[in-house]
Amino acid sequence: MEHVKTIESLGKLVKAMRQQGKTIGFVPTMGAFHKGHMSLIETAVNQSDFVVVSIFVNPTQFAPGEDYEKYPRTIDADLKLCSDVGVDIVFTPSAEQMYPTENLTWVNVEKITAPLCGQFRPGHFQGVTTVCAKLFNIVLPDIAYFGQKDAQQAIIIKKMVSDLNIPLEIVVCPTIREDDGLALSSRNHYLDASQRQDAALIYKSLQTCRKEIENGTKEPETIIEKIRYTLQQAASIQIEYVSILDAESLNDLDNINGRVLVAVAVKIGQTRLIDNIIVDASEY
Amino acid sequence: MEHVKTIESLGKLVKAMRQQGKTIGFVPTMGAFHKGHMSLIETAVNQSDFVVVSIFVNPTQFAPGEDYEKYPRTIDADLKLCSDVGVDIVFTPSAEQMYPTENLTWVNVEKITAPLCGQFRPGHFQGVTTVCAKLFNIVLPDIAYFGQKDAQQAIIIKKMVSDLNIPLEIVVCPTIREDDGLALSSRNHYLDASQRQDAALIYKSLQTCRKEIENGTKEPETIIEKIRYTLQQAASIQIEYVSILDAESLNDLDNINGRVLVAVAVKIGQTRLIDNIIVDASEY
Repeated sequence: MEHVKTIESLGKLVKAMRQQGKTIGFVPTMGAFHKGHMSLIETAVNQSDFVVVSIFVNPTQFAPGEDYEKYPRTIDADLKLCSDVGVDIVFTPSAEQMYPTENLTWVNVEKITAPLCGQFRPGHFQGVTTVCAKLFNIVLPDIAYFGQKDAQQAIIIKKMVSDLNIPLEIVVCPTIREDDGLALSSRNHYLDASQRQDAALIYKSLQTCRKEIENGTKEPETIIEKIRYTLQQAASIQIEYVSILDAESLNDLDNINGRVLVAVAVKIGQTRLIDNIIVDASEY
Repeated sequence: MEHVKTIESLGKLVKAMRQQGKTIGFVPTMGAFHKGHMSLIETAVNQSDFVVVSIFVNPTQFAPGEDYEKYPRTIDADLKLCSDVGVDIVFTPSAEQMYPTENLTWVNVEKITAPLCGQFRPGHFQGVTTVCAKLFNIVLPDIAYFGQKDAQQAIIIKKMVSDLNIPLEIVVCPTIREDDGLALSSRNHYLDASQRQDAALIYKSLQTCRKEIENGTKEPETIIEKIRYTLQQAASIQIEYVSILDAESLNDLDNINGRVLVAVAVKIGQTRLIDNIIVDASEY
């Protein structure tokens, strides 16, 4: 495995691989790997001839006042994990490599960036789409892998790739969970023992919702109230949003029909956690 | 020469060329070719193994009320000209090919899109950068060619390519002029005989400016007044802007120093015309 820090070196290595006709799989990450990341990386290793993992805590996707400075950085452990599963290149550019001059160019996706996390993290998705566009141009992968845990991000990236004709397939991999259902997140490390216990209510609330939809409940507000009720069992949980939206367009729904995205964001202490499920309501 | 109308067909052809190790030159245009376009195309033919010319009157770069509908379309003549000079592919996608679903993704360049034409053509540069990003992803060229006549466009595209790490060299080719100095433009066809005569004042005013700088005049306002005075010799000319800016940053200048862009936009009747020169004032 090669550990590459400059865009120029990476460009040469991937160009050589492409010229050999190898398919390139790419997993863009911010590091601090858990089993969720590793499932993306292992899928890439299984599906592609040559796998590039980037680790870059991208400053432009943190909203003012967010945790850019304290975001966990575990580069040595991350490198070992990549090496163990057969990654070919880990790319860890500095902020100066990625933004060598004042960045004036932003990739903006309208509408689907507005609801959910878009309401609470100003500039976040603009930072994500821009850095992904940059990384896609640097790596020129055939396939890139994203997690279902960041459902809105995956939908936005897919739309950007389609709208801009980026020659790339996006694969979205399932959310990986702890035994009690908590979705794996690098930010789970911020939780103390009591907060960690309360955090299990997030997935529990989504399971409640799934049962309601399976039972034929069609009014989004009824289900949203049940999710909120479950979350409010823990005083530590402050709800940011609970939303049920069309899983493709992220439009509001009058009635629950077709594939719906049920998405929750909460704060537990200072830690912001998100989770979601997709339910095909047309089956019920 | 192949005339290709779909993104899919184009993708296959250029992929085959790349696999043969050929360099791909690309000239994105809106058609209605004149000697300015042909100089870009001939430069591409001379410098690249394989040349793609796109002809697409891009709806998203026309501001409301502009001449999208009546913009000249001379596809048969354009195809013949391309064939004559040795172009390999002319790509003429429909608007439905380029924007098959509601386009939500825009590439926005800040700051350098604000002055000059940016003040008068709302959304224009967003349309240009977005369609260029799309075309670059479709063609994946090694070099793309733009004209100095659209000076601000060339500066914006260069910055976009640099900021987004698009693996592409931008070559800017000199403005081609009529004998009386009028810069070639597809919009010159809109002028009647009297307007056409008046239009020669645009370049004359820029030549006046060059002399002033060569004579050591350092105050932008003094020179701008002389340009305006020359343009006002024709009653048909309405001045949109006369600006002297830093040729890289497009920042305003207190004093004329270094490489400066002198740019003019006027309306003659309903026809909007632009022109510019770059002067290296550090020589004087």
